[in-house]
Amino acid sequence: MSDETAIPVVQMRRPRWGDPARTAELPGAAAALAGDRQADAGVDPATITLARPAVDVDVREQISELVGPDNVSDADVVRVQHTRGYSTPDILRLRAGDADDAPDLVVYPGDHDEVVAILRLCSERRIAVVPFTGGTSVVGGLTPDRAGVAGVISLDLRRLDRVVEIDEISRMATLEAGLRGPAAEALLREKGWTIGHFPQSYEGAGIGGYAATRSAGQSSAGYGRFDEMVEGLVLATPRGTIELGTAPRSAAGPDLRQLVLGSEGVFGVITSVQLRIRPVPTTRVFDAWRFASFADGATALRRLAQDGPLPTVLRLSDEVETALNLADPAGAGSEASGPSDTGAGGEGEAGDGGSAGCLVVAGYEGGADEVARRRDAASALLTDVGGSALGDGPGEAWRTGRFAGPYLRDPLLDAGVLVETLETVAFWSRLHEVRTAVTAALTDSLTASGTPPLVMCHISHVYESGASLYFTVVAPFGDDPLEQWAAAKTAANTAIRASGASITHHHAVGRDHRDAYHDEIGPLALDALRAVKASLDPAGVCNPGILI
Amino acid sequence: MSDETAIPVVQMRRPRWGDPARTAELPGAAAALAGDRQADAGVDPATITLARPAVDVDVREQISELVGPDNVSDADVVRVQHTRGYSTPDILRLRAGDADDAPDLVVYPGDHDEVVAILRLCSERRIAVVPFTGGTSVVGGLTPDRAGVAGVISLDLRRLDRVVEIDEISRMATLEAGLRGPAAEALLREKGWTIGHFPQSYEGAGIGGYAATRSAGQSSAGYGRFDEMVEGLVLATPRGTIELGTAPRSAAGPDLRQLVLGSEGVFGVITSVQLRIRPVPTTRVFDAWRFASFADGATALRRLAQDGPLPTVLRLSDEVETALNLADPAGAGSEASGPSDTGAGGEGEAGDGGSAGCLVVAGYEGGADEVARRRDAASALLTDVGGSALGDGPGEAWRTGRFAGPYLRDPLLDAGVLVETLETVAFWSRLHEVRTAVTAALTDSLTASGTPPLVMCHISHVYESGASLYFTVVAPFGDDPLEQWAAAKTAANTAIRASGASITHHHAVGRDHRDAYHDEIGPLALDALRAVKASLDPAGVCNPGILI
Repeated sequence: MSDETAIPVVQMRRPRWGDPARTAELPGAAAALAGDRQADAGVDPATITLARPAVDVDVREQISELVGPDNVSDADVVRVQHTRGYSTPDILRLRAGDADDAPDLVVYPGDHDEVVAILRLCSERRIAVVPFTGGTSVVGGLTPDRAGVAGVISLDLRRLDRVVEIDEISRMATLEAGLRGPAAEALLREKGWTIGHFPQSYEGAGIGGYAATRSAGQSSAGYGRFDEMVEGLVLATPRGTIELGTAPRSAAGPDLRQLVLGSEGVFGVITSVQLRIRPVPTTRVFDAWRFASFADGATALRRLAQDGPLPTVLRLSDEVETALNLADPAGAGSEASGPSDTGAGGEGEAGDGGSAGCLVVAGYEGGADEVARRRDAASALLTDVGGSALGDGPGEAWRTGRFAGPYLRDPLLDAGVLVETLETVAFWSRLHEVRTAVTAALTDSLTASGTPPLVMCHISHVYESGASLYFTVVAPFGDDPLEQWAAAKTAANTAIRASGASITHHHAVGRDHRDAYHDEIGPLALDALRAVKASLDPAGVCNPGILI
Repeated sequence: MSDETAIPVVQMRRPRWGDPARTAELPGAAAALAGDRQADAGVDPATITLARPAVDVDVREQISELVGPDNVSDADVVRVQHTRGYSTPDILRLRAGDADDAPDLVVYPGDHDEVVAILRLCSERRIAVVPFTGGTSVVGGLTPDRAGVAGVISLDLRRLDRVVEIDEISRMATLEAGLRGPAAEALLREKGWTIGHFPQSYEGAGIGGYAATRSAGQSSAGYGRFDEMVEGLVLATPRGTIELGTAPRSAAGPDLRQLVLGSEGVFGVITSVQLRIRPVPTTRVFDAWRFASFADGATALRRLAQDGPLPTVLRLSDEVETALNLADPAGAGSEASGPSDTGAGGEGEAGDGGSAGCLVVAGYEGGADEVARRRDAASALLTDVGGSALGDGPGEAWRTGRFAGPYLRDPLLDAGVLVETLETVAFWSRLHEVRTAVTAALTDSLTASGTPPLVMCHISHVYESGASLYFTVVAPFGDDPLEQWAAAKTAANTAIRASGASITHHHAVGRDHRDAYHDEIGPLALDALRAVKASLDPAGVCNPGILI
């Protein structure tokens, strides 16, 4: 039933997203935004020539002894494939032939102990280490600061790909960090279990990355955020190993799992995670509902989050995204945890599509009785607060197309159309103000640079006290699309913080959100985090310049 | 409906528990355990004379200027009332006239800024600061290490007692840390809201203590643990203020709220907490069920925790506790977050009461429809896995008597009967092993010291992946009850850690669990916590010797 497990594990090839065998057709109307530009796929990354690796030959030899010579590479083509992440600026740079941030070496450790040994060696030699699972960061999380280090190693964890243990009584599985989403689901499904974590980066991202960045999947209403699924984890640091997670919850001091989750590699490398698992659902139904306005739809989502019952998937699209969704369900309004949404088919004229109202998708997964019970109660509430049932057609269309979004960015960029996403989260009482402020900041900035944008918004994660807001921005290339987007992003970040929201809901901090993050937590909390880093990583080699 | 709000806010008087106007009758059979001892209430704490305060006069004057002269006291009677907590060893010491751990000064700050100013001053003068809300610690959390400090101040937060703000849209309330449970509930109830946090220490404990110790209340299945209710908090440190909680959840770095929750005063003083609130329930029903064995009952609880729906209150008593519960519902088997359970009326002969089986209490609170829906589904599951419905009589009896337990300890101690509790939490797959090991350790230790005990156990907090185990131990006084209990407690702690469980589920670490806690998190994580403390409290004056 769960077609997520039918998604093959593929090696994505930067700068393009996903399965290389699958190419997205650009929706016809996108050309309207692009004007009469010639399609341009940019520089072939296989042709990029890099500077010689900065890492000393003897370091390379020592690492080679640790992991075996086949598990170290300084080939340009390999280094390029570990350069930066999947934000639109990252992609634009690589398309322009710029791989200046490439790591010096790519190392593939085989187990936890090898990771600890590499961290120790790199600590002695002051070489930065970047953990790499899917490489799908959209916030610069894979681009460490080279100041003060003698080189950069990308630590690709793909060989740490085992399901170590399944505890069926406690419903937990111990998974190694390099397992990618589809592989993890396929291995668990053989035994009847699922993690239930399906971010839009699902095809590319992996367990370690989910944990290090506090990922949230499309089914978060039913299965929880990734950080809520973690019962235990193992962290390799330059000083040795930390194992956390004796029990589900405890009063034994601070919850240190929550200190490692979201640490983005700056304290060390997460090598395995003990995850809560659930039985593979036997029943699934995805309903769609229409609300007259975003405010009405948000009230409905809030009521479900506060009074229950919660569907497994719950999302609300604004008028623009709704018009695109209903016109082109596979291409619009899906959500990216790793890569950016590309929910625009250039159908900007649909922006006035107030007639479609605002689409709510409410999906239910589980046992038949329990799905029926939740669906009936939630449907009664949605009707009660003004929703009109649209049946399961649009909901199913959203479901089946939900991993297609990222594939659209590539032909859009080929056609000269800039597309990028950003997200935030706030308490319900501030949500309207945040949405208004961020929309205005993006619109004003891009209009000022001569490229009026299409700005869409959806809610895809709800909590009793608040919700996420996810923005997709589409605009024709200006003279300098990197500069164009940088200005818009700065304006959006400023608006997010000024309106009291968090700088990110599930894309993490990386380098791109660092200043705003420091503003968010304040100087003393930042000092405390830096103290933790100094304690565990005294040489400062773990993903330096990220987060803190 | 919620009679919790009918509980008056009283000033408890050490060493006895709760409302001084209320005295518990000792169940008749308790005398059997005590033999022919004379009842002895111990030394009147009002008669204890203390050594002169160690704090310099000029420090006292400076504090007096900060908070006003009426808000500082070094009177013996006040200092004695801030001495240690409510563990049975703490109580035994005070009953023996030993108040050697009394603080030198008791200070009552009026707001957050005064707390920061006091911490700054104490940091300069190297005076330890112990945050005090309810003073109900059972793990030595109020007894700092005097090595290296020039005195100890008990910072009694009772004047920080306001509901600062209620955000009805986001369903959150900002409460000051000194608010005690009943006062907080009464103030919120005026507006139709409840926190839903009802630990057995409810009459004594306060908001700041709940947060600092990761308290869990009797309704945790429905309302969550206290740490799960916290959306934001404000921490006063010697270096200034940390404010956390921009949004319900975020990917902006580690969740630093979870670093402060459970920090037991060692990073500073929590002065206010932003809590999730819920509407006051309109319907309540408490069912009782009988299972043939503890293992069968545990399986039933696990199924409810994993497959749902969860009642609001869910607990399982073993055979001994069940026999006592059904014989004397008001006095047995309730649960202590702060004070110890005293669930034994000396009816040790009921220990063979296998005929009663094992009692499950399943309580439901909420709106009428939702309660009916959850109750029907949960009842079907409980029946399905072998439960026999006992109606709502025993469940209601448990509910109405659930805050009575702690009152019984005093007459038991008067009668020479030692009673104490301890708790742990583990993953489901280890639960049986943990329960067996801890029961054996307690039984063997106390039998070896010549006082065979009655050991009872219940589960009162369930999670998808595991559950708590709460032990109540009753034994006649040996020659040295402090030594007698210390040996039993050490044996239990060793068994807990050896069987892979956490050293505490909701009583926190304090001094009593410190070594076991360090074993649980390991040396590198301990270093990280010490680094955080050194960053925020460089002089080491915040509750030194506790936790880390």
